[in-house]
Amino acid sequence: MTSWFYFFDLCGTAVFALSGALAAGRHRMDPFGVIVLASVTAVGGGSIRDALLGTTPVFWIRDPNYIIVILLTVLLTMLIVRKPKRVPQHTLPVADALGLALFTVIGAEKALSLELGGMIAVVMGLITGVGGGMIRDLLCRQVPMILRTEIYATASILGGISYSLSLHLGAQDKQALIFAMVVALGIRLAAIKWHLSLPAFDLKTNKQNKK
Amino acid sequence: MTSWFYFFDLCGTAVFALSGALAAGRHRMDPFGVIVLASVTAVGGGSIRDALLGTTPVFWIRDPNYIIVILLTVLLTMLIVRKPKRVPQHTLPVADALGLALFTVIGAEKALSLELGGMIAVVMGLITGVGGGMIRDLLCRQVPMILRTEIYATASILGGISYSLSLHLGAQDKQALIFAMVVALGIRLAAIKWHLSLPAFDLKTNKQNKK
Amino acid sequence: MTSWFYFFDLCGTAVFALSGALAAGRHRMDPFGVIVLASVTAVGGGSIRDALLGTTPVFWIRDPNYIIVILLTVLLTMLIVRKPKRVPQHTLPVADALGLALFTVIGAEKALSLELGGMIAVVMGLITGVGGGMIRDLLCRQVPMILRTEIYATASILGGISYSLSLHLGAQDKQALIFAMVVALGIRLAAIKWHLSLPAFDLKTNKQNKK
Repeated sequence: MTSWFYFFDLCGTAVFALSGALAAGRHRMDPFGVIVLASVTAVGGGSIRDALLGTTPVFWIRDPNYIIVILLTVLLTMLIVRKPKRVPQHTLPVADALGLALFTVIGAEKALSLELGGMIAVVMGLITGVGGGMIRDLLCRQVPMILRTEIYATASILGGISYSLSLHLGAQDKQALIFAMVVALGIRLAAIKWHLSLPAFDLKTNKQNKK
Repeated sequence: MTSWFYFFDLCGTAVFALSGALAAGRHRMDPFGVIVLASVTAVGGGSIRDALLGTTPVFWIRDPNYIIVILLTVLLTMLIVRKPKRVPQHTLPVADALGLALFTVIGAEKALSLELGGMIAVVMGLITGVGGGMIRDLLCRQVPMILRTEIYATASILGGISYSLSLHLGAQDKQALIFAMVVALGIRLAAIKWHLSLPAFDLKTNKQNKK
Repeated sequence: MTSWFYFFDLCGTAVFALSGALAAGRHRMDPFGVIVLASVTAVGGGSIRDALLGTTPVFWIRDPNYIIVILLTVLLTMLIVRKPKRVPQHTLPVADALGLALFTVIGAEKALSLELGGMIAVVMGLITGVGGGMIRDLLCRQVPMILRTEIYATASILGGISYSLSLHLGAQDKQALIFAMVVALGIRLAAIKWHLSLPAFDLKTNKQNKK
């Protein structure tokens, strides 16, 4: 992995660790619990990706820097963020969106470097991008982001397609990376700001609504 | 894998994708969310199986047909099923039962082809059969099928035992496959139709009931 | 693995299987459902560890004794424990604590035997120790232990540090194992008995409390 991708990967780790730490704070977890939730959020998606690909031991076992970035992020979060009111309302979804965009590209790049083709690259980008947040939401008993109506998986899938396609059309790594990040992050932030959503596939019956 | 098993494996993928898409529709997910939930349901069990066995990259990374079957199933489901009332009440559990029976045999066969013995074959059939639906139910915040009182894991375990045993007793692959499918599907459908259940292991206290 | 570690590993398997079986009884599951929940609890953490490390097939596929211990534990639990009142109130958390301590050491030992360094050893101890219980709680729709305020992850992390550190300082395997077990189990049991908790990282807003 070139140094650019490595740098972005550590950035994604930090923002997802931040999102996990903030979610932990909302559940009044103790410091070690905060570390666990931040870690699971930050490395969960990439771990599932590596286990499915068979590129084991998974990335963070081979490179201790990921755990160090998580520990530093948790420490800084707990030192700086002391009162709920000091956390702007959208910090968690925005951190999550940034992580989603960064990890989508990292995951797609990993699949392409193993010569697995564009479709698998999009899927690996999606797994890397949404996996950690999905585990975080399951453990916190939140409705997983992926289930809410706002555009979420869509941002990752379109980011992954942008990345694979622009490389296929001859773009350089760095260009493709920045283009795909802008696509995924732009779509997700727009969805958060204006509550955008695609038309839903709706089989909800009245009977269910009454429950 | 012989062509018979491959054909049944793709059928199982389609019916589990259908069950995931219907569950997504009940939660009013957008089209990309539907694809994600259908995919997780369809390949979740087999992915866990392959990750535990170490036969990686997992099956759907090596063979793009699985993803194509899922995408087609989702597309057809969203085109054909437009109103809740058009979905017969039992479509989801019956699709789930069919997938359970198909994937139980596929999982058991995979373990036996690796010469892992009958007990591990039954376990791998169970993981392949119930894994995807379990993830679907967790993400949808439904009580996992496996936790409800009706016979569920039982159908998969007895199907797996039927498969291993009939091969052990000299049956041909195709005979064993059909026999085990009939056992697992028959038990599960009977359980759905007549609300059959085994005697429960009951430690529920009154105190808990009051909650 | 020396016979001591193997013996402790089977003990941990039995106590976690017991905790899973008791949890299943509280949800009125049928016998095969009890087996599934007991198994997932008993081998879940170690399976995640092995999948992440790439030491596949995972441990219980290579050695059928683990499944046999689980089946015997489930059988004994269902035969002996017939009425809720006969289960002392703290049986489930105490069994869980014992499993946590045992599996923490087993997981850390596994990482050290692969020469992965102290930090990864602590993480692998944590994953092995808390993974199975986490899946059990998710499937049972309980608040995961790790999210509750009492000291939990802390006990595993401090146990893992004790193990790695005492080996580093020249202790023998058996001494380090017993010391780390005492640390982890002591901390966790004390936390259960006196409801100890570390100061929480608290970002819960009044608005959230009202929900």
